[in-house]
Amino acid sequence: MQPRLDVLTLGVPDLDAARRFYVDGLGWEPLLEVPGEIVFVQVGHGRLLALWRADALETDIFGDAARGGHPPPGAGVSLGHNVDSEDEVRRVVERAAAAGATVLKPPQRATEFGGYHGYFADPAGFRWDVVHNPGFSVDGDGRVRLGAGDG
Amino acid sequence: MQPRLDVLTLGVPDLDAARRFYVDGLGWEPLLEVPGEIVFVQVGHGRLLALWRADALETDIFGDAARGGHPPPGAGVSLGHNVDSEDEVRRVVERAAAAGATVLKPPQRATEFGGYHGYFADPAGFRWDVVHNPGFSVDGDGRVRLGAGDG
Repeated sequence: MQPRLDVLTLGVPDLDAARRFYVDGLGWEPLLEVPGEIVFVQVGHGRLLALWRADALETDIFGDAARGGHPPPGAGVSLGHNVDSEDEVRRVVERAAAAGATVLKPPQRATEFGGYHGYFADPAGFRWDVVHNPGFSVDGDGRVRLGAGDG
Repeated sequence: MQPRLDVLTLGVPDLDAARRFYVDGLGWEPLLEVPGEIVFVQVGHGRLLALWRADALETDIFGDAARGGHPPPGAGVSLGHNVDSEDEVRRVVERAAAAGATVLKPPQRATEFGGYHGYFADPAGFRWDVVHNPGFSVDGDGRVRLGAGDG
């Protein structure tokens, strides 16, 4: 598993409020947005910040299962780690599990964007989203291109 | 305020456990570490992941003040935003506050690393650390150089 962080997703309880702050307030221009769902902003060479409805993020990780209990550190965020194939998603999640991670969502087709992914939590509870997303590419100058997804 | 994320800091309750997972388990090589305190790993072009003792992160933001209450979303993480001068730290924090952010730590000298920084929380509670760190630089190929700090 290569050390890389490609997308930091913030699960926001109020997407309109988050958009008003980052887009209207700070003047950060969305790279792509789906109104009422998600806003992507490029925040460096080959990296994105995603503002996503918190309930959608939690459902993406845990399905409809109730979570209960106190949220662990890192609740509300996920760290996106891109790889080049579905097979590599499986290998990375296995490697992480062997190293002591908890698999939260076994590798599977990602209904949200038409790729393939799985989630694991590190020992402190921080959630990594291991993703093969054919719609995500980075130009030589670091600019991210994000397909609208075919899923 | 330019859209950029330079360092993602995970506040980990057990630094030894985090190090065993990321360094020993996943094989991620530290760029710099201070035993018992913090581990930095490069996770892309010009970007770092920091594993920091959770209590040290919270103290860096809130001082010795007790926090109380339920942790907001994003408790346990901070998003590092680098700027080029102390004056720019002040301007960015002012801009964020004008856009609706809550200033958690007014701009001030950073005792931890000899730079200058301030923290604000976005409307959902995610904490940004606005930093002028003369010891942080990025080579043309994206490799981060991190001074040990002179503070």
